[in-house]
Amino acid sequence: MSELETIIIGIGGVGCIVAYGIEYTNKSNVSIIVRRDYEKVIKDGYEVDSCDYGKFNWKPKNIYKDIEAAAASGKEFDYIVVTTKSLPDVVKTEDLIKPLVSKKSTIVLMQNGFDLGRPFFDKYPENVIVSGVSHIGSHNNGGVIHQTQNDKSLVSYFESPTIPVEIQEKKTKDFIDIYSNDKNNCTYFPDGKWYRYRKLVYNATLNTTCALTVTDTAINEYAGGLDAISIPAMKEVIKIAKADGVDLPDDVINSVCHSDDGDYFSPSMCVDVQKGNPIELESILGNLLVRGKELKVETPVLDTLYSLLKVVQYKLKVKNGYITLPEKRPITDKFYQ
Amino acid sequence: MSELETIIIGIGGVGCIVAYGIEYTNKSNVSIIVRRDYEKVIKDGYEVDSCDYGKFNWKPKNIYKDIEAAAASGKEFDYIVVTTKSLPDVVKTEDLIKPLVSKKSTIVLMQNGFDLGRPFFDKYPENVIVSGVSHIGSHNNGGVIHQTQNDKSLVSYFESPTIPVEIQEKKTKDFIDIYSNDKNNCTYFPDGKWYRYRKLVYNATLNTTCALTVTDTAINEYAGGLDAISIPAMKEVIKIAKADGVDLPDDVINSVCHSDDGDYFSPSMCVDVQKGNPIELESILGNLLVRGKELKVETPVLDTLYSLLKVVQYKLKVKNGYITLPEKRPITDKFYQ
Repeated sequence: MSELETIIIGIGGVGCIVAYGIEYTNKSNVSIIVRRDYEKVIKDGYEVDSCDYGKFNWKPKNIYKDIEAAAASGKEFDYIVVTTKSLPDVVKTEDLIKPLVSKKSTIVLMQNGFDLGRPFFDKYPENVIVSGVSHIGSHNNGGVIHQTQNDKSLVSYFESPTIPVEIQEKKTKDFIDIYSNDKNNCTYFPDGKWYRYRKLVYNATLNTTCALTVTDTAINEYAGGLDAISIPAMKEVIKIAKADGVDLPDDVINSVCHSDDGDYFSPSMCVDVQKGNPIELESILGNLLVRGKELKVETPVLDTLYSLLKVVQYKLKVKNGYITLPEKRPITDKFYQ
Repeated sequence: MSELETIIIGIGGVGCIVAYGIEYTNKSNVSIIVRRDYEKVIKDGYEVDSCDYGKFNWKPKNIYKDIEAAAASGKEFDYIVVTTKSLPDVVKTEDLIKPLVSKKSTIVLMQNGFDLGRPFFDKYPENVIVSGVSHIGSHNNGGVIHQTQNDKSLVSYFESPTIPVEIQEKKTKDFIDIYSNDKNNCTYFPDGKWYRYRKLVYNATLNTTCALTVTDTAINEYAGGLDAISIPAMKEVIKIAKADGVDLPDDVINSVCHSDDGDYFSPSMCVDVQKGNPIELESILGNLLVRGKELKVETPVLDTLYSLLKVVQYKLKVKNGYITLPEKRPITDKFYQ
């Protein structure tokens, strides 16, 4: 039994394969927190059909129903790996994980989005915040995991202002050591910031436009949305990146526009809207606009997309019970102008 | 039997009550064109439950399946009343009605939207184009008509460049004469242009924002969309109107923002998106932007709403079979920049 302890929070399709990958590597004990599927998993474990690891049944040794139960175990976690959706306007991950964090914890955010480390720096000035960008394709259907795309991830760190770079780098590589194995594809990618900006050229633009129009990237192009909205939005992302010291490749717009070649592809945020789930708006676009404003970059197209998607998000929050409206719309005497 | 002949095209909830109102007034013979409900109506007529006229069964004397059948009847129509949705990017009404138009025809457009007369002026330089803005609440469910709100309409004309004003005014009043009765509420409203601009302050802004975010005007307000998008859009409508010689009241924004007081109200375009029907985008917003460009008014917010809703409309056209996409998305070697 290893002396290292790792806990994975947010066990869906991705989290389960990440957890299994760490157990498979056999350098750390693994705990998981399972909410929705707890009854099934504690009884029968997961049924996994994985393109990386094969078909098998997996019942992790340490299964907790929530953060409090995991904290009550008395374990001190070396790695706290978060694989939930990133919804800071619904739940603040930095608050959620607090009972699990000790001085020795490395916090690993394997989540979509930009500048995710920021709320952690204040709260956990001594803990390294690792950044994992995952390209896995894996889905969870009530404890049945179907992984169709190789677990490929690029790992770096969110640059903490309080911790020496060497320590951040070392802790990041330590995490890669307990995670990387002969089946998955986990690489150290020194310039995490560059990489997250590069992803935003797609996610803050095509993902947002398609979420708003609830359609795929092909129809967005055929209907003129790519030229009128998405590409101007991409130029704004590139401008913010540049002001932030990040030079993206000259042909980045062309590459991004070709990324769904041959597919009528609906990006993740659009799929969330279709399913009626809250969208990763703040992590993907809100955080970027905060940075843009700090850098005094004007972003009229992204601002408009953000304002409109805030309305969509509000609707989704009402639908999912995060916001309750009075039964009858209240009448105000506000003077609008 | 009257000597006048009127035909109503697009018999839904509104068209049926308009047609019945004209028959009830008893100053013109009435013909209708029914497509979807033809079999039911030709056999059993309409079942009407009307807040204006009561409960009854109504089988109009002249029922035609399409324009060609109506034209083949040999009748010369004095009034051609169009109550269809206004979808010029799906079907051009001015082409559709051609077989029915003679020199003596007055064309009555009882449709949502702006500048609807323009495509008729070239094609029918001798025919007066009457503008009817209806405030009725009436729905058709397979030949069962349920009218819940009084048939109130404001009637004027789209100002033709080729016909003397006196004639346009007279023909408009002639139409009111055959339509207005003791149950409905049909008034001559001389400044049709003013009135259509006034309606656009809601329709081009709140209707569009809610169509895009697929929500009601309350959630749009609570989520910040009213302040960030809809009100700036209203200011652009007011600017175009002003450049077009139309002064809207100082408190128009306030009135419009209060129009759904007490209701979680989803505007018509939003309801169309929810139902998967094409939206009246060109009539409500496209035509306005054409006019804005002619008048050199800058409209960045409306332009963005239009571009995004064009994507929504494209998707709806695909869904309704107006556009067919290849099974696999074709790959191009276009260089995007």
